[in-house]
Amino acid sequence: MPDATLLETFDSPTTEPFLIEHVNEEFTSVCPITGHPDFGRVTVRYEPDGACIELKSLKLYFQSFRNEGAFYEAVTNQIRDDLRDCMTPRWMEVVTEWKGRGGIHSRITATAGEEL
Amino acid sequence: MPDATLLETFDSPTTEPFLIEHVNEEFTSVCPITGHPDFGRVTVRYEPDGACIELKSLKLYFQSFRNEGAFYEAVTNQIRDDLRDCMTPRWMEVVTEWKGRGGIHSRITATAGEEL
Amino acid sequence: MPDATLLETFDSPTTEPFLIEHVNEEFTSVCPITGHPDFGRVTVRYEPDGACIELKSLKLYFQSFRNEGAFYEAVTNQIRDDLRDCMTPRWMEVVTEWKGRGGIHSRITATAGEEL
Amino acid sequence: MPDATLLETFDSPTTEPFLIEHVNEEFTSVCPITGHPDFGRVTVRYEPDGACIELKSLKLYFQSFRNEGAFYEAVTNQIRDDLRDCMTPRWMEVVTEWKGRGGIHSRITATAGEEL
Amino acid sequence: MPDATLLETFDSPTTEPFLIEHVNEEFTSVCPITGHPDFGRVTVRYEPDGACIELKSLKLYFQSFRNEGAFYEAVTNQIRDDLRDCMTPRWMEVVTEWKGRGGIHSRITATAGEEL
Amino acid sequence: MPDATLLETFDSPTTEPFLIEHVNEEFTSVCPITGHPDFGRVTVRYEPDGACIELKSLKLYFQSFRNEGAFYEAVTNQIRDDLRDCMTPRWMEVVTEWKGRGGIHSRITATAGEEL
Amino acid sequence: MPDATLLETFDSPTTEPFLIEHVNEEFTSVCPITGHPDFGRVTVRYEPDGACIELKSLKLYFQSFRNEGAFYEAVTNQIRDDLRDCMTPRWMEVVTEWKGRGGIHSRITATAGEEL
Amino acid sequence: MPDATLLETFDSPTTEPFLIEHVNEEFTSVCPITGHPDFGRVTVRYEPDGACIELKSLKLYFQSFRNEGAFYEAVTNQIRDDLRDCMTPRWMEVVTEWKGRGGIHSRITATAGEEL
Amino acid sequence: MPDATLLETFDSPTTEPFLIEHVNEEFTSVCPITGHPDFGRVTVRYEPDGACIELKSLKLYFQSFRNEGAFYEAVTNQIRDDLRDCMTPRWMEVVTEWKGRGGIHSRITATAGEEL
Amino acid sequence: MPDATLLETFDSPTTEPFLIEHVNEEFTSVCPITGHPDFGRVTVRYEPDGACIELKSLKLYFQSFRNEGAFYEAVTNQIRDDLRDCMTPRWMEVVTEWKGRGGIHSRITATAGEEL
Repeated sequence: MPDATLLETFDSPTTEPFLIEHVNEEFTSVCPITGHPDFGRVTVRYEPDGACIELKSLKLYFQSFRNEGAFYEAVTNQIRDDLRDCMTPRWMEVVTEWKGRGGIHSRITATAGEEL
Repeated sequence: MPDATLLETFDSPTTEPFLIEHVNEEFTSVCPITGHPDFGRVTVRYEPDGACIELKSLKLYFQSFRNEGAFYEAVTNQIRDDLRDCMTPRWMEVVTEWKGRGGIHSRITATAGEEL
Repeated sequence: MPDATLLETFDSPTTEPFLIEHVNEEFTSVCPITGHPDFGRVTVRYEPDGACIELKSLKLYFQSFRNEGAFYEAVTNQIRDDLRDCMTPRWMEVVTEWKGRGGIHSRITATAGEEL
Repeated sequence: MPDATLLETFDSPTTEPFLIEHVNEEFTSVCPITGHPDFGRVTVRYEPDGACIELKSLKLYFQSFRNEGAFYEAVTNQIRDDLRDCMTPRWMEVVTEWKGRGGIHSRITATAGEEL
Repeated sequence: MPDATLLETFDSPTTEPFLIEHVNEEFTSVCPITGHPDFGRVTVRYEPDGACIELKSLKLYFQSFRNEGAFYEAVTNQIRDDLRDCMTPRWMEVVTEWKGRGGIHSRITATAGEEL
Repeated sequence: MPDATLLETFDSPTTEPFLIEHVNEEFTSVCPITGHPDFGRVTVRYEPDGACIELKSLKLYFQSFRNEGAFYEAVTNQIRDDLRDCMTPRWMEVVTEWKGRGGIHSRITATAGEEL
Repeated sequence: MPDATLLETFDSPTTEPFLIEHVNEEFTSVCPITGHPDFGRVTVRYEPDGACIELKSLKLYFQSFRNEGAFYEAVTNQIRDDLRDCMTPRWMEVVTEWKGRGGIHSRITATAGEEL
Repeated sequence: MPDATLLETFDSPTTEPFLIEHVNEEFTSVCPITGHPDFGRVTVRYEPDGACIELKSLKLYFQSFRNEGAFYEAVTNQIRDDLRDCMTPRWMEVVTEWKGRGGIHSRITATAGEEL
Repeated sequence: MPDATLLETFDSPTTEPFLIEHVNEEFTSVCPITGHPDFGRVTVRYEPDGACIELKSLKLYFQSFRNEGAFYEAVTNQIRDDLRDCMTPRWMEVVTEWKGRGGIHSRITATAGEEL
Repeated sequence: MPDATLLETFDSPTTEPFLIEHVNEEFTSVCPITGHPDFGRVTVRYEPDGACIELKSLKLYFQSFRNEGAFYEAVTNQIRDDLRDCMTPRWMEVVTEWKGRGGIHSRITATAGEEL
């Protein structure tokens, strides 16, 4: 199940503001009602405030959702919360894009802080 | 015919503002004049104010237009009205994109509230 | 329901062999088990033997499947049979391509006669 | 030749502001100097103020340019004027995009009113 | 109306076999029943037998169909016949691809001689 | 783990030869060495000999690989074997296409019988 | 060499503001150091103030750079200057996009006046 | 003008048959009638018989057509002849693809020897 | 290793503000932990303040990272710093886009000064 | 430098013929004349005869070309030879596709054995 303790950070290489974006094309979790797998893309954009998320730890964190049952809206807000707690960025945006079910595909966006 | 009672909601997983988008690639209704089928894509974007639209109920609501005769402009405004009544979002946008007839394709956009 | 009597033909403008292809991007029928709509593309390729299918009659024939419940494999073979009976081409190929359900999309091909 | 009397309107289905876009992929007129045909796409975007343009009448209006000799810039402004006179929208934008001649392709944009 | 006397040829620059393809992206004629314009792409592929079609004359020949009412199948065979009469190639293929009407788009192929 | 007993068939709607293709865009299994997830597309093409694979059962069969550790080459041959045993088609082709790892992406193809 | 006297204008068909864009996909000049040819796309966008650039004269002006040796940055500013002198638009933007050399491709943008 | 003496070869690194393809995306010559520039792509595919064409010499050879007036068909056969004379390959194919003029784009193919 | 002394500038051809963008599609460095190569695209956009970066020197500077071990975030900030020191632009943006590792691809953006 | 001893194999999971394709999108070596880096894609397709190439060893083998100076034609034949020696497949094809230099991009194909 989702495990925020997997997340690790490293010190930002600069004190000047800059922007980081990581896109995971291979996110999967499970529908809590039907048990069928959901597939999607997760994009994390943030402006670091001293700490950057370590890339391999981010991958393992995403993999921890593999057999978790959760709705799109809840998964998106949980990732936003876990990353915000872990590195307290100046600004962050989490976007999840889910492949279609029954002809409908979805996209959820949650943010933290104000974009500069 | 279009049936707004099919729409169901669930409680938003957070009180923080966030954005939801559902895209139905397989919308079809019927031209009220010629009786020929129309095909299109319907996109619903909204910022929930406590209630989120349940995805399966949204699919069934869209399917209820299948044999309904209605103009593009009217369909778009009806979907906006039905969804606004159902979940009273902070902001909502409904976009319908219709495949071409006689070399002309169309796109209608109706909103509710002010985007943040 | 599917109505082969809608199909009409006209005389080929030449006795020399040639090839005709019509692609309907807006085919829809209904799943006979779940009642949910199916959407797809139907391609008809044929070499006429005196008779050509009239385009508007072909469109109306395809529309007659709109509320019919039928499996992919059966729809494809029925279209092949109806068109073969109607115009007895030298060769014909019917390809149906169905949008995804549960992450799986399908393509069925049925032929009549030998391609030259 | 271009015939604005072909244009017809119908009452908007709502008094709330919304946006309509029609794209004609198959516009053709004739170069007034060389007599060679020009081909292009015409996009009309507008916010109705009570009246909407009827789609079939718009198609016939566009077809009336078929054998008309006119420069790109003049055609674009004429379409803007004719549609503005016909339905007095809150805001309107007409974009013509012309296929290349001698390696150069062009795009002309004329507006009426202020976009909301 | 279509005018084969517009077609001109020039001597092939070589006696060795080679292949020529000209693609006209801007073909238009008129539906003989409804009077509505048809738009399409015409591709001519051939292996010359001494004579090559002159490109500007080919363009003018295609333009002579502009206000002609003709079915897809007849237009395709007429172009094949006119070009075959004009330059007697070793092999030739004429393909017309027509933009959609009522959701159906079409492609007609006529040949002359055997491809090497 | 992979479970071939999930596979079900139904009788072919015709005794004439025809071709069926199902494409699963959302296949996932696990690398047996690193434990990291693999993602890919699985395509099954076959010519039935009386029995067709039921689509929902095929989806559940593919899902049964979700937490299975297996090499690309072994997964592909196992799917070929399980489907061949289940419906004894006249001909079958199984293609797996795997997303990149370390900049290398792969595609494995296994067949059964001779294509007509 | 570049010849601004080739440029001609005609009177704008309207006194209302509108926007014109011409894109030349086939621009070529020569590197002043190596003598190798450079290839690129030139886009001119402007809002006319009474005078519009005549399209054929623009094509000939662009062709006059064919054997001219000039750096990307200088070519872009020269085109901006020549067109500004010729038609004194309310606003103008010249964008040159150059195909890659040694894996690097470039894009230069010069403007005149303030966009409305 | 075209200068075949620019072409240089080097010894093939193997006596086993293999296939080489070079694609020049930036070919330009001049129309011998109008003097307007022509732009296109030239593809050379060949199976060497001991000698391979040196890439930089090929680039300079193509550049020597820059201000040459020649028809599409003649350019293609000349390139085939010059390269055949220079390296006597087992098999060779030269394809020129020309950007559109007046809505028509062209593709010429000349070969030497039999493809294995 | 990265060598900022490779960077050279030339005088801007104008004192008016304009925008320059260079995109290197073939950047490569090495992961400092695993030693595996990283591949990506580097985009430099800037508004010169008298000095422009010379293109060949920029290419050699990028090549000097080839066997350097460095994190994405550090590489991006170093390029920004080196270019800022070298030509003191009015405004500059450096974007690095890195191909996927383990299904995650990344994009880092660092700026200098305020965009006009 | 290229090191064939890095290559490792494992036993094929079946004695039936099947096809394997690995595509490395991130191949780089160095031009032996100019010292500039070359970038390309390498595709290996083969039908195993008992032994399959191990994927991680293949990646390391490709990385060993990183600082090697070699011509396109020689690299392609060397990869073919090294892989043929290592696993003696029934059939193999090696395709290298190289990004453009001076507007020309290339593709080299070497095979071993006869394709079934």
